[in-house]
Amino acid sequence: MAVFGATGYTGLELLRILLGHPGVQLAVLTSQQYAGKRVSQVYPSLTGRCELVLEKVSLTRMLTRFDLAFTALPHETSMDIVPALLKRGKRVIDLSADFRIRDADVYRRWYRPHKAPELLEQSIYGLTEIHRNEVARASLVANPGCYPTGAVLGLAPLFAAGLVQGTVLVDSKSGTTGAGRSSAVELSFSEVNENFKAYNVGVHRHAPEIEQELGRVAKKRVTILFAPHLLPISRGILSTMYIELKRSVSEEKIHRIYREYYHGEAFIRLHPPGVFPETKEVRGSNDCAIGIRHDSHSRRLVVITAIDNLVKGAAGQAVQNMNLMCGFDESEGLRGAALVP
Amino acid sequence: MAVFGATGYTGLELLRILLGHPGVQLAVLTSQQYAGKRVSQVYPSLTGRCELVLEKVSLTRMLTRFDLAFTALPHETSMDIVPALLKRGKRVIDLSADFRIRDADVYRRWYRPHKAPELLEQSIYGLTEIHRNEVARASLVANPGCYPTGAVLGLAPLFAAGLVQGTVLVDSKSGTTGAGRSSAVELSFSEVNENFKAYNVGVHRHAPEIEQELGRVAKKRVTILFAPHLLPISRGILSTMYIELKRSVSEEKIHRIYREYYHGEAFIRLHPPGVFPETKEVRGSNDCAIGIRHDSHSRRLVVITAIDNLVKGAAGQAVQNMNLMCGFDESEGLRGAALVP
Amino acid sequence: MAVFGATGYTGLELLRILLGHPGVQLAVLTSQQYAGKRVSQVYPSLTGRCELVLEKVSLTRMLTRFDLAFTALPHETSMDIVPALLKRGKRVIDLSADFRIRDADVYRRWYRPHKAPELLEQSIYGLTEIHRNEVARASLVANPGCYPTGAVLGLAPLFAAGLVQGTVLVDSKSGTTGAGRSSAVELSFSEVNENFKAYNVGVHRHAPEIEQELGRVAKKRVTILFAPHLLPISRGILSTMYIELKRSVSEEKIHRIYREYYHGEAFIRLHPPGVFPETKEVRGSNDCAIGIRHDSHSRRLVVITAIDNLVKGAAGQAVQNMNLMCGFDESEGLRGAALVP
Amino acid sequence: MAVFGATGYTGLELLRILLGHPGVQLAVLTSQQYAGKRVSQVYPSLTGRCELVLEKVSLTRMLTRFDLAFTALPHETSMDIVPALLKRGKRVIDLSADFRIRDADVYRRWYRPHKAPELLEQSIYGLTEIHRNEVARASLVANPGCYPTGAVLGLAPLFAAGLVQGTVLVDSKSGTTGAGRSSAVELSFSEVNENFKAYNVGVHRHAPEIEQELGRVAKKRVTILFAPHLLPISRGILSTMYIELKRSVSEEKIHRIYREYYHGEAFIRLHPPGVFPETKEVRGSNDCAIGIRHDSHSRRLVVITAIDNLVKGAAGQAVQNMNLMCGFDESEGLRGAALVP
Repeated sequence: MAVFGATGYTGLELLRILLGHPGVQLAVLTSQQYAGKRVSQVYPSLTGRCELVLEKVSLTRMLTRFDLAFTALPHETSMDIVPALLKRGKRVIDLSADFRIRDADVYRRWYRPHKAPELLEQSIYGLTEIHRNEVARASLVANPGCYPTGAVLGLAPLFAAGLVQGTVLVDSKSGTTGAGRSSAVELSFSEVNENFKAYNVGVHRHAPEIEQELGRVAKKRVTILFAPHLLPISRGILSTMYIELKRSVSEEKIHRIYREYYHGEAFIRLHPPGVFPETKEVRGSNDCAIGIRHDSHSRRLVVITAIDNLVKGAAGQAVQNMNLMCGFDESEGLRGAALVP
Repeated sequence: MAVFGATGYTGLELLRILLGHPGVQLAVLTSQQYAGKRVSQVYPSLTGRCELVLEKVSLTRMLTRFDLAFTALPHETSMDIVPALLKRGKRVIDLSADFRIRDADVYRRWYRPHKAPELLEQSIYGLTEIHRNEVARASLVANPGCYPTGAVLGLAPLFAAGLVQGTVLVDSKSGTTGAGRSSAVELSFSEVNENFKAYNVGVHRHAPEIEQELGRVAKKRVTILFAPHLLPISRGILSTMYIELKRSVSEEKIHRIYREYYHGEAFIRLHPPGVFPETKEVRGSNDCAIGIRHDSHSRRLVVITAIDNLVKGAAGQAVQNMNLMCGFDESEGLRGAALVP
Repeated sequence: MAVFGATGYTGLELLRILLGHPGVQLAVLTSQQYAGKRVSQVYPSLTGRCELVLEKVSLTRMLTRFDLAFTALPHETSMDIVPALLKRGKRVIDLSADFRIRDADVYRRWYRPHKAPELLEQSIYGLTEIHRNEVARASLVANPGCYPTGAVLGLAPLFAAGLVQGTVLVDSKSGTTGAGRSSAVELSFSEVNENFKAYNVGVHRHAPEIEQELGRVAKKRVTILFAPHLLPISRGILSTMYIELKRSVSEEKIHRIYREYYHGEAFIRLHPPGVFPETKEVRGSNDCAIGIRHDSHSRRLVVITAIDNLVKGAAGQAVQNMNLMCGFDESEGLRGAALVP
Repeated sequence: MAVFGATGYTGLELLRILLGHPGVQLAVLTSQQYAGKRVSQVYPSLTGRCELVLEKVSLTRMLTRFDLAFTALPHETSMDIVPALLKRGKRVIDLSADFRIRDADVYRRWYRPHKAPELLEQSIYGLTEIHRNEVARASLVANPGCYPTGAVLGLAPLFAAGLVQGTVLVDSKSGTTGAGRSSAVELSFSEVNENFKAYNVGVHRHAPEIEQELGRVAKKRVTILFAPHLLPISRGILSTMYIELKRSVSEEKIHRIYREYYHGEAFIRLHPPGVFPETKEVRGSNDCAIGIRHDSHSRRLVVITAIDNLVKGAAGQAVQNMNLMCGFDESEGLRGAALVP
């Protein structure tokens, strides 16, 4: 396996997971900033577990050493290398946003003009629970964004059942690692600690991704209002979602719809009706925990999901997809329970 | 002045503020747990600033020493002492929930049977910006709850203008001091740190208080869905509120409605349209910061307010009310800027 | 296997680790508080991973179901049950302090009169790297305290080499889970967050344990000054230790002494001279990271160690000991890298 | 008054304090980064309290508007402007390190060649409790570093009494604002949160400053080993100091030495013997809290001090110095109690 961009937070989390995967041999790790160093010099926690030397990208020198690549590169950068990898017959799981949006116009509006628009339609959106079969056969998997993973998993059963009326409000709260390994002053400890704020309300890039994917589930246009907030925690996304139902359905009935939709899923944890998840119960694990509650007073359904943004929201789901692509058990390397407390 | 319950977090915050108030002489501090100790032994930060000895409650011994009392006692306990204080001619600012709900049946449903229901109608709800004139003349002020303060201040201009349609969603996030000085395991550092969760969604006691007060502003029945969450910070409440408008109104127009509604208010900070407040900009201050944004995509108005739950949400607003009742400048003792960072 | 006291933090961490251990079958979990519930109802993170029902202790009903027991009970409670387990032929790894102190008088001074003093001399102190061979054959292992683990591992090579002069200063800083799952107000989030303090300086119960074990390494009486502090983090202990050397030894020479002392150890990570560890590089892992630096200006050696108090400082080391006792590879179930960031 | 560098954390804290000072009129605020904006646009917490526009430095345009300047500029930058201010007859309180070290060679070794070495001997080190009289008459006050403030205040009574033997160990732990408003990745929330580490042990720039000042008190050369650590809190420094005494002195006697040394000091809070301070009891206040304990077992004295690095460790002490220089009461504007919790 190769990991392009191995020293960002997503890359590091990929290494942590893959090192515990019995079927995987890591062979290539790239890093712009740290090329020439062993990865364990950058991250001492890997000492004795991975002593590979980080390399600058050079496909020619690397090609014979891997069959599948994880690209954990910045948005708008991944598309520089993914086409070359595919052309050389590699399978790719891309963890950037570059191949998630199927419409090149939408991509351009929220990011920039796409350099490989022809790949947008053939990439498979890697929300494993929903696109399992296509993922298994894919050459290029676009690993979902962290917010969309929590939001779409929480809402898909309702849209599939045709129960949603009007706009869905998605009030999400994320830890800071969702922004990557960043030197922005706004993400410094002194600014984030003992603070809480909303940002990019209604104008976050994950909104079109959520609408696209829920639209595919619903088989029609979907409108959400997406309001992300920044939590003073490192890992975890909790999304509180407010839904108006088309018709009166009992909480128990809705719960059954969720149970059936996610029947047999290893990484979906559905709480009893009225019980909501916390971010700590998924920290470090690939679980997505879901709670629902129907509020008869306001006639709204509340759905809350919790994921670890670096695991189910990034590296863990990427490995889940890799397992399908390579014929491993889907849970291989991902069975560990959350680190609590 | 007297502070009943001086060693809880609200009591301590009252002391911090009142010690900087040029017109106030503290004379009586009570504490069940620490009676007999100087308050500076319990809270070293007060050393040299307040060396009063904490007393057990004994109205007879205390009566001649104060004219106005702050009662910062637990809910369902305050009503044991407030009637006696009033009977003896004292003015009272009660910081518990006991005199906020005007309907004894509603109080009983959310708390327990009321012991002094005859006082419910005559107590003045101390949301200063809205009930300023009544507060000035009041014998008994029911100081608002922390969540209701942020929610009602953020929504009142819209309800006053008759612009709200249907249910309002109030997604609030509070720091831990909102729960008081507590030994609950759920509030221990190991449980709260690096965690985030919702609690009491749709069944929190502050919901009827918010609906009551917005109903008075709107002059009709109001329905909200109130979803509180617990933040891993000590101080601060951020409330994100989602409103469907009755008719299309421009963001600028709505902003003007807020500007006019809060014209001249010392503690309301209205941000420019589209700019939202953070909790840190109000920490330790009596400010309520408000931001609004109209999302045309989903046709929802988003209003976000930030307060310090112990200041504008409790002790600061209590002093603001005291200033009115005693004829001080309304801002006296409350002009300090937030502690940033 | 049995875990007595499965719902404290140490018990939970044991479960997390043992569930990933291919050779272990969990059969008995006890809990006073939650008996009758499935452990996954108490800790949702275990859902689908462990669905055992928690039981009240009843040796008769349990005896046939396990051969080895972890006792993760409060200090001064463990000694009520460990003798009975041993009498019935079970092997025991005790995670309380009850069998760590070899001298019953010392135990009484720091805890209370011991109920099974005859076991004190036969219990094996389970600091695996130092007592590996005895652990393998032991019936009763006294798993070390969290502070002693970090302190003794950091100082043992110096004492073994006879290099230490006079008093060693051990300035330790621990996260809150070291205090267990506690409802003490002092450990509430509002008190610990954005705060830092020392506690029990010179009078902490772990001081005699550290002196006892270093004395065994040094083969003479050892004096330390132990100053613990409470960090606003959940997991991790960093111990900064200041040593006066008997004679001038180069940093490089000292580093070699450490390398040789810990040669081949899977869980000791020795940093290059002058490079100190951080708590995050061991969080969730069984590693003990060590850094040394010689300060020629003050002629002091500084040694810093970092461990996760719940893993190498408790449950992880217990499993390491179990591996030896049961003939597993010493690293089995413990190979995972730290959760960073 | 003028504040040069008004938008760093120290500058902001100066504004917060000075806005509550009845004798001060702010007239000039400079900022490289935000020139042209109102300071309340950068820091909304100042809205309605300070609406000055930030300016680029231009002495000519500014000169008539102030008599005293606070220079809160980066180290090695302050010395570019301070000489010009002095030449024009302004009094200066410099909060950088540029005028603290009296020996130009020492300054060069730890910083860089000094551009105005002739000012080093005439600047007054503004540790107010120790140099009060000189501060009152000074043209140039070098405001002490945050670590040196806590360390020197904690050790001065012992050195003045000639009680210290050999090297003193200063194990300090600081919150992140001590590093200023920084975009370093190492100070990002994801790196600092749930982490703890030492840095620059034995090679921190504050070590020579501490030795210089203690040497002046002791009237002889002093050696310390200074080991700073980074705490995951925003504000606060706790310094744990270990002292070997020249002769046996009772704890009570030492306590009396401290009481007498700091007799009448408004900002020194001496705890009873054996009771140590916490950082939270000084947060936001100008207090320095001190606790001492003699450990007879190891024959070491432990002294712990707590300050808010931005207040007593920077802006508060600067205002304390200004009060002396301008003839105000020394406590003016600084009487507020700490923000607890």
